[in-house]
Amino acid sequence: MKVTRREFGWLAGAAALSGVLMEACAKAESPGIGWCIVGLGRISMDHFMPGVKQGKTGRIVALVSGHRDKAEQQAKMYGAADSAADSAIYNYEGYDRIRENKEIDAVYIALPNSMHAEYTIRGAKAGKHVLCEKPMATSVADSRAMIDACRAAGKKLMIAYRCQYEPVNLKAIELIRSGAIGQVQAIESANGFNISPGEWRLNRKLAGGGPLMDVGIYSLNASRYLTGEEPRDIRANSSVIDHDGRFNEVEENVGWTMRFPSGIVASCNTSYGSDMNGFYRVHGAKGMIELSPAFGYQGIHMKAELAGRPGIDMPTPQTGADQFTVQADYVADCIRNNKEPKSDGEEGLRDMELMSAIYKSAGLPGL
Amino acid sequence: MKVTRREFGWLAGAAALSGVLMEACAKAESPGIGWCIVGLGRISMDHFMPGVKQGKTGRIVALVSGHRDKAEQQAKMYGAADSAADSAIYNYEGYDRIRENKEIDAVYIALPNSMHAEYTIRGAKAGKHVLCEKPMATSVADSRAMIDACRAAGKKLMIAYRCQYEPVNLKAIELIRSGAIGQVQAIESANGFNISPGEWRLNRKLAGGGPLMDVGIYSLNASRYLTGEEPRDIRANSSVIDHDGRFNEVEENVGWTMRFPSGIVASCNTSYGSDMNGFYRVHGAKGMIELSPAFGYQGIHMKAELAGRPGIDMPTPQTGADQFTVQADYVADCIRNNKEPKSDGEEGLRDMELMSAIYKSAGLPGL
Repeated sequence: MKVTRREFGWLAGAAALSGVLMEACAKAESPGIGWCIVGLGRISMDHFMPGVKQGKTGRIVALVSGHRDKAEQQAKMYGAADSAADSAIYNYEGYDRIRENKEIDAVYIALPNSMHAEYTIRGAKAGKHVLCEKPMATSVADSRAMIDACRAAGKKLMIAYRCQYEPVNLKAIELIRSGAIGQVQAIESANGFNISPGEWRLNRKLAGGGPLMDVGIYSLNASRYLTGEEPRDIRANSSVIDHDGRFNEVEENVGWTMRFPSGIVASCNTSYGSDMNGFYRVHGAKGMIELSPAFGYQGIHMKAELAGRPGIDMPTPQTGADQFTVQADYVADCIRNNKEPKSDGEEGLRDMELMSAIYKSAGLPGL
Repeated sequence: MKVTRREFGWLAGAAALSGVLMEACAKAESPGIGWCIVGLGRISMDHFMPGVKQGKTGRIVALVSGHRDKAEQQAKMYGAADSAADSAIYNYEGYDRIRENKEIDAVYIALPNSMHAEYTIRGAKAGKHVLCEKPMATSVADSRAMIDACRAAGKKLMIAYRCQYEPVNLKAIELIRSGAIGQVQAIESANGFNISPGEWRLNRKLAGGGPLMDVGIYSLNASRYLTGEEPRDIRANSSVIDHDGRFNEVEENVGWTMRFPSGIVASCNTSYGSDMNGFYRVHGAKGMIELSPAFGYQGIHMKAELAGRPGIDMPTPQTGADQFTVQADYVADCIRNNKEPKSDGEEGLRDMELMSAIYKSAGLPGL
């Protein structure tokens, strides 16, 4: 199993990071990273903005939305209106004007998938760092263009793979790398939910695909960060079971199996027809690690069985920071200290290429 | 989801069966089904024979073994020597002489996989019913020959799919058929163990294949009895990770995904490199059923989450009969009442054909 120096460094430093940063920022004169929130959906309003507020490395300074009223209300809640009253709120047409707002260091892209590329590229061209939600885009070509644009602008691009910064998942990675479960042999994972009609996620043009793009990507990405390897030999099936109008444009279920260079096999499912309570099991020669749930915003829970050693039962640390705070703090650290994010554009691109391969194997169009 | 009448009948009658039979046999003059045990390995000595003894529908009347001493000791333990002193013990060469032993109603074949066909066919030709361990054989052709031989002899052929008669698995099937978790969308399952060097299971000639044949078959068979459908679109990978001499002849890991006619996807792994604590998760539109462990001789445990209803936590009933007793009683019922076993030769053949397809998809020789 290949472990990069960067990966080891990250693992070692992850636990201490949030505290150190918070202390540094509290001491510093700097007001922290100025965030511009692009898209005011649930993940922005219920999770990311409260997460930034709980941290001490950043603050919300601007909002981009098609709904002026909602944006004004949110701006007020987060003090964005006070800090830059005239330029705190943008609509999508006026988005490029963020260039002139020196309070904005970074944009957080939380739009329907098909808009990720455009708003990432326009953000980078406006001189801002980018944190973009997953999936990175709706095509491999768009993903490459995003990487190129951020590189050309000299700006960071991070894909918001929350779980790569979440302590229970990090503990699972650490246990695996330390040899606690011996040579990994196989992984099972699933993630899905029973989708309501009318969601933009069911619109192919906006979403790019179905549950694989939206939630199956967690199982795919986890298989990669757990093994530290890139999968090959992808074999997949997809299906639509419920002909109730929801799945006229995207698939309902995908099952796939893949093999990693070391020989590890991973078999996964994803669904928009079932609440799967996303989980994974990692089977090694000397033990097993199960995270169930593995991918939630909270309540992640690990159980590890280790041959000849006491098992581990690790719920989400109650004293730990919110996952969105950890993520925002990490981006702040990357910007301030000119570090390449662990989940950079290349990381997002690899999942896009793999999801394209999964779709093709299932007889659907690639990405 | 297709439910056969036979299946419904079995589900309805399963709970009551053991008790009714025991009562009937206790009252009857009949001494019960006379079993001839073919092969004295762990499953015979530690599980099947004690299971028969605990039940009241049968008794051990003969043994076939290459080790006379062991056979005599076991015969004494089960009273087989008393009942038919001269003809209670056979070696493999003399096996056909069971024809002359009128105390023997049925043979239990618990030999290395490659010997299942020969000893089933010779058993049927000797006029005995057959309970054969899984996998049924090491080739599809042998499986067909076994079915033909038993049919020609007018004898029952049952494959020892224990879990199809086990109460927690039956409860899972019942919940699914009753609609308790809504339309099933996806299944994950894995089964495996970390094999010791030197086992016959690692010898291709004796085993026919690796973990798929031996333990992966549980996940495959469960996917079929849980859905009540026959899978298509099988896609698989296999691998050898540990080049330590164990896997010179058979695979170490197999991952596969398959799609059922209704659209249900199932993704499974099996391994000889890891103790997987065999499990499955069945995801439906209205809930999830997890059995973990799902396939053990004891300690099977179900947790079901049902939308809008209290969950179910069902361990193996403590008052229930041993799985091997239930199985032996079921065979006795089939013989006495001329019923076709639920897990008949055709059932075993389907798994053989599917395992052949899994191997072929993984680039290995078919069966």
